Amino acid sequence: MTITEIRQRLASQHLDALIVTHNNRFLGQDILPQEHKLQHLCGFSGSAGALIISRDKAWLFVDGRYELQAAAEVDTAQIEIIHEPPYTNNLFNFLREKGLTEIAFDAWCLSVAEFENISRRYKEMRLTDVGDWLNLDTDTPVAVLSRDVRYAGQSREQKCQIVANMLWEKHADYLLLTAADSVSWLCNIYARDLPYTPIVRAYAVISLHGEVTLYGSNLQSTDVPTKSWDDLLDFLHTSAGHTILYDAHTTPQCLKQATPPETDLIKTPDICQLLKAEKNPTELQGMINCHIRDGVALCKLLCWLEQHAQGLTELDVVTKLHQFRTEQADFFSESFATIAGFGSNGAIVHYQPTPQTNKPLADGNLLLLDSGAQYLDGTTDVTRTISIGTVSDEMITDFTQVLKAHIALAHTRFPQNTAGMKLDVLARAQMWQRGLDYKHGTGHGVACFGNVHEGPQSISVGGSPYGLKPNMVVSDEPGVYKENAYGIRIENLLYTRAADLPDAPDFLEFTVLTKVPIDKRLINVYLLEQGELEWLNAYHQQVYKDIAPYLSGDEQRWLQKACSPL
Amino acid sequence: MTITEIRQRLASQHLDALIVTHNNRFLGQDILPQEHKLQHLCGFSGSAGALIISRDKAWLFVDGRYELQAAAEVDTAQIEIIHEPPYTNNLFNFLREKGLTEIAFDAWCLSVAEFENISRRYKEMRLTDVGDWLNLDTDTPVAVLSRDVRYAGQSREQKCQIVANMLWEKHADYLLLTAADSVSWLCNIYARDLPYTPIVRAYAVISLHGEVTLYGSNLQSTDVPTKSWDDLLDFLHTSAGHTILYDAHTTPQCLKQATPPETDLIKTPDICQLLKAEKNPTELQGMINCHIRDGVALCKLLCWLEQHAQGLTELDVVTKLHQFRTEQADFFSESFATIAGFGSNGAIVHYQPTPQTNKPLADGNLLLLDSGAQYLDGTTDVTRTISIGTVSDEMITDFTQVLKAHIALAHTRFPQNTAGMKLDVLARAQMWQRGLDYKHGTGHGVACFGNVHEGPQSISVGGSPYGLKPNMVVSDEPGVYKENAYGIRIENLLYTRAADLPDAPDFLEFTVLTKVPIDKRLINVYLLEQGELEWLNAYHQQVYKDIAPYLSGDEQRWLQKACSPL
Repeated sequence: MTITEIRQRLASQHLDALIVTHNNRFLGQDILPQEHKLQHLCGFSGSAGALIISRDKAWLFVDGRYELQAAAEVDTAQIEIIHEPPYTNNLFNFLREKGLTEIAFDAWCLSVAEFENISRRYKEMRLTDVGDWLNLDTDTPVAVLSRDVRYAGQSREQKCQIVANMLWEKHADYLLLTAADSVSWLCNIYARDLPYTPIVRAYAVISLHGEVTLYGSNLQSTDVPTKSWDDLLDFLHTSAGHTILYDAHTTPQCLKQATPPETDLIKTPDICQLLKAEKNPTELQGMINCHIRDGVALCKLLCWLEQHAQGLTELDVVTKLHQFRTEQADFFSESFATIAGFGSNGAIVHYQPTPQTNKPLADGNLLLLDSGAQYLDGTTDVTRTISIGTVSDEMITDFTQVLKAHIALAHTRFPQNTAGMKLDVLARAQMWQRGLDYKHGTGHGVACFGNVHEGPQSISVGGSPYGLKPNMVVSDEPGVYKENAYGIRIENLLYTRAADLPDAPDFLEFTVLTKVPIDKRLINVYLLEQGELEWLNAYHQQVYKDIAPYLSGDEQRWLQKACSPL
Repeated sequence: MTITEIRQRLASQHLDALIVTHNNRFLGQDILPQEHKLQHLCGFSGSAGALIISRDKAWLFVDGRYELQAAAEVDTAQIEIIHEPPYTNNLFNFLREKGLTEIAFDAWCLSVAEFENISRRYKEMRLTDVGDWLNLDTDTPVAVLSRDVRYAGQSREQKCQIVANMLWEKHADYLLLTAADSVSWLCNIYARDLPYTPIVRAYAVISLHGEVTLYGSNLQSTDVPTKSWDDLLDFLHTSAGHTILYDAHTTPQCLKQATPPETDLIKTPDICQLLKAEKNPTELQGMINCHIRDGVALCKLLCWLEQHAQGLTELDVVTKLHQFRTEQADFFSESFATIAGFGSNGAIVHYQPTPQTNKPLADGNLLLLDSGAQYLDGTTDVTRTISIGTVSDEMITDFTQVLKAHIALAHTRFPQNTAGMKLDVLARAQMWQRGLDYKHGTGHGVACFGNVHEGPQSISVGGSPYGLKPNMVVSDEPGVYKENAYGIRIENLLYTRAADLPDAPDFLEFTVLTKVPIDKRLINVYLLEQGELEWLNAYHQQVYKDIAPYLSGDEQRWLQKACSPL
């Protein structure tokens, strides 16, 4: 369907505007290129945005990351680009300003929480669920694969029993699970259709008896009973008299509409999000193990890079790193598109090299390399900034300051249940000391063989206030970005565990998962405090011990030098 | 009036319970002993609490600080002590549990904000304003004194003109000012009736033309036009058609009740609280100057204490410190009752020595000394922890850790408008590093010749989210408290100013106001990082430079030793 056809429908149905977001029914999850409604309608291919189409105008909302890209991809004679994040409130404030009140939307693509927020705050608006006018769905079958319990640590039955216990405690009959990463974790299943995230895009209903049913389209070859979307609507239609728990932030308004008032539909935070954030011993060991293999791949890359930097481009680095990773056992995919930004490209926070932007590595600047992988036993996410040739004192001072910020978080202890948002400033204040800052959170949660960004934990001022518990994985990634010059970020994954404090059993500390040397050529040791230097040397010693056995003699010599104490 | 008489009135008026709080009409300000309604009714003399009197029972709400004191002062056969802070929500949750719904209260002693909160959250409650049944007011005249502009920095007319401009911008006719510290600051007036706080307990109304009228009782000898409480009610009664700004958090519900619906009564944060938090150049210089005089008094005390500790008690130290302070120019009063807690008394956060608790100073423990003063040019608040004789390694380790926490905040830089609540963790995380914590905020705002605790700024997780601006004064006072053993706190006052960062003009840093050496006998220098050591030595060098000229030869020698570099 085209924008012109949409306008005809708006007119015939007496509607003022249609809202099209980046979402499909798996709210907030990755989508496939062929599912990209915004790209289909206007050419914009970014990973966040929203389009408002009125009868005579159209507006594309994008955040700061995508302003340049949107301007390049979109016909701005037809579509005006609005430089505001595509938050629902921004869209509806805009509609209010424009006097548009009869609003068409797809109730599969808007959460109950957002719908209720709009209904409360924009009382003059009438929202009409018009369903999916674009209908980009394909019927390509998706093979549902079983995740072995030796990776998952708990069987599906064990996990479903925990859910059943919760239902029993809450006097509920069913849990409606609409977050695909929760469903995949609960059922120990995965799929290969998304390029970076091994989740099965399905909903699930779990009964008080621990029986689970999947709902989705084109799901094949799974031993979990699987039904269609229409079956789910039927289930809800006929649920009168039952109590169903659901998470209003991931459940589409469509499902609430389908449920009769006689059903007791109760909002509850998605328990699987909370359970899977606290890694079980098998998952934690998997995360430790896969970080060693990932470290081996990265060390091989860094050694190769030092020997061959001359004449390479960003994309060469991406390709070579991919090759080293595929050689590792249990490699599944990258966990996101590798960011390899040289010089000024490194200052663009969400940069990914393309043939058009691809820079050659040249003497005297920095390569920011942010990448990660999915292995069957875990997920990685690591950023290193690498000196290419001889770099300036300013770069070294900045890098050292980022390192101080990184260590400040990595080295801290805190009482169990401290909200990660409170810890963000420990790293950030190190940058503030020199008048610097970074416009992103210090860290995010990471799944084990799932989303590389997961909640509820977060080390970010704007993040959730959920308290940190043992065995949670978070990233630690302060940075500094100097426009048109260079970018620096140092990112390790950390996990929480009981602090080594006999008198304070409730305190936690971090252990570093990532095993890759930090470029010592970029460190001004005179700017480090003794405690920071000790942290760095101990970290490098551990990296050498864990990684060296898997390297060639040449690579071992490189690593020994890279990890020698400062 | 007695509890028995109150019960008779409740019965005759068909009411279930009366709420009596610690407040008079100056909500949240200090009160005089003779105004202490709780003490009058049940003997409890603490500075925070609330009493609920039903027809057959009575409950006293006190927070953790006052549990022991309440048990000692109150007849627990008649009054049950409830160990919950006396927050309005706690009181009304309790009333709800008890099924009490016809509630008598004094609308002069409850803010509009609290009244609205109750009305919204406790819809089953019916609140009846019964006025002040206790009537403890006296007619002792209060001399209203004028604060010279050479201390205040701005004349009353200048300040009123700022208010008038704001009224004009907001299309309002009047500002109703109900916070006594705001009124005193705006009018450049003070009084001597409260023991520690030189404020005039009055309300004020400022007109669009910058004319100010005081409202209060027994106010004498001021050149500001002064009227009675009844005049204020008359003014509000006849204000129909006018627009009046007021702060719902400091304005009693009584005044809202007195205002006809035809008056446009608009909630606005008290502008004077915001203005006076950012010290003007004269106030800031006054704060700097009075901290030198206060430092001289404290250095004399510390020198004397080192020479005479043998045989002294906590109260001897309080008396001697008072004497040294009274010898300083422009001394007005202490700014709060001096806390001198030796050994286990130091572990009680709000301890004040009395003849009953007074401990002798003995070899091998710590004296926690938290005190402050009002001078005509400013206000001080300082805590030092002093080694008496030879102390344990644990005490030295703990003291050093508190010092690290203190320095972490004092030494930080941050973007202007960063909320102080975000900075709290910088100090606290230093204590966390060893599994320690403190159950109070890291810092609070301090007025210039006013309340020793002022808002809106605060370095506290539970504090206001108001951003820090230049020339604000805050305390920095981490601590550690080991029950039945000892307490440690190190407190300096700091003020904010532009950071010494040419490339980051929006960043702030702190400058230390307090000029008193930190006890080096309690520092394990091997636990300090180089940057911390440099901070300490530079601080001591500055203390010596500023204080030494005002000391005797003997005292100078003591100070030189106390301030020599580590």
